[in-house]
Amino acid sequence: MARGFDVVRRATVADDPRQIEDALRHASGQARLVVTTGGTGVGPRDVTPEATRAVCDRLLEGVAEMMRSEGRRETPMAVLSRGICGTRGTSLILNLPGNPAGAVSSLRAALPVLPHALELLSGKTEHESHGSHENSSNRTEPGPHAHAKRAAAASARGKVRRS
Amino acid sequence: MARGFDVVRRATVADDPRQIEDALRHASGQARLVVTTGGTGVGPRDVTPEATRAVCDRLLEGVAEMMRSEGRRETPMAVLSRGICGTRGTSLILNLPGNPAGAVSSLRAALPVLPHALELLSGKTEHESHGSHENSSNRTEPGPHAHAKRAAAASARGKVRRS
Amino acid sequence: MARGFDVVRRATVADDPRQIEDALRHASGQARLVVTTGGTGVGPRDVTPEATRAVCDRLLEGVAEMMRSEGRRETPMAVLSRGICGTRGTSLILNLPGNPAGAVSSLRAALPVLPHALELLSGKTEHESHGSHENSSNRTEPGPHAHAKRAAAASARGKVRRS
Repeated sequence: MARGFDVVRRATVADDPRQIEDALRHASGQARLVVTTGGTGVGPRDVTPEATRAVCDRLLEGVAEMMRSEGRRETPMAVLSRGICGTRGTSLILNLPGNPAGAVSSLRAALPVLPHALELLSGKTEHESHGSHENSSNRTEPGPHAHAKRAAAASARGKVRRS
Repeated sequence: MARGFDVVRRATVADDPRQIEDALRHASGQARLVVTTGGTGVGPRDVTPEATRAVCDRLLEGVAEMMRSEGRRETPMAVLSRGICGTRGTSLILNLPGNPAGAVSSLRAALPVLPHALELLSGKTEHESHGSHENSSNRTEPGPHAHAKRAAAASARGKVRRS
Repeated sequence: MARGFDVVRRATVADDPRQIEDALRHASGQARLVVTTGGTGVGPRDVTPEATRAVCDRLLEGVAEMMRSEGRRETPMAVLSRGICGTRGTSLILNLPGNPAGAVSSLRAALPVLPHALELLSGKTEHESHGSHENSSNRTEPGPHAHAKRAAAASARGKVRRS
């Protein structure tokens, strides 16, 4: 599921908020898109959303809503995912469930909007961009820009996968 | 609407945040599922979500989203419900609207995911469980477990019902 | 798109959180409904939701969810809108995207529930009102009331529109 993204780094960390935060800070310095898997559930050791919130500047609630509402088409249990999507500087951090089917479903839901979100994050404006509802308005830079270079780090799993 | 849950306690409290918080703390010590009705609206005395947030460890935003989106099938006004669902220890607290039709619609929407949420909350893992998107990953306990004993307290109405 | 609302004031302010907050405070003293356009995106200068949150007492998450889910019917990019809806005293503040198509789509989605939300905000109760899921319960005022006078201020754009 590369889809125009290069995976630049992978990392696996324990269910520890501090370790997850450190991994997210590190990864978001290396990549524009940081994707986590796991730790988004209701269990006592599911702490990825909290760690993500702690390192993000802003949240994109609509992306999390969309992952859940798309997930519900497959299983109602998808609503229990607490995964979020947020920005850190010009990077995006996206939490996916640890369950492979749920992770694929969530990523498939979010993927179509990620390139545009990354463009806007880097200060590119609507006039230079395509068919969005969001108007980041008339900024200084005129004319079309090439798509931002994208790099994805499938980093900072919320938990050690032993399987 | 018992649906596998035993009602262990009912209580009615005034529209006072402090009283609602106390009732929620008490009820969540007695039952794994605490359901409130009323006080989720936009009115000046609607303070149940605030009281619930104050006593919860974590919120399950997806459950609230689902209650509202299912409610919209009956009336667009369902989006005005500010009811939330959160965890307190190993208990779940769920806010329903005070309007009986809205309460039934919301509970019907949330009910299918509550038993699984309660299992995950008590530390049960995905491998022992069924078809969820959420993977609370490989914990220590192996093998299948019986469903957690469930008890529901329809407690802590956000307001005194005089009707 | 007056729809029973009188526009009492329009204002345009810069992308500055302080200026937006001031404009929102001023407008919500003049009108029961304050609508902003712009500044809800992911770009570095999109700060309208933050300014709105800062001046609101409570948020109506369901209204924002509905604007995004309705927007998705037109473009998946609608999920990137971070616009919120909140209350300040007895006024409502609603953030619309700056993009005209997105603004119209979002307003069209939210409009049907705004009059009822304004009634409830002013302390009118469900018994005096119509088909809502929310029950603000038996308050003191009996009998039917006339709809609250409505006034809309399309004020406090998140950014200077130069087009």
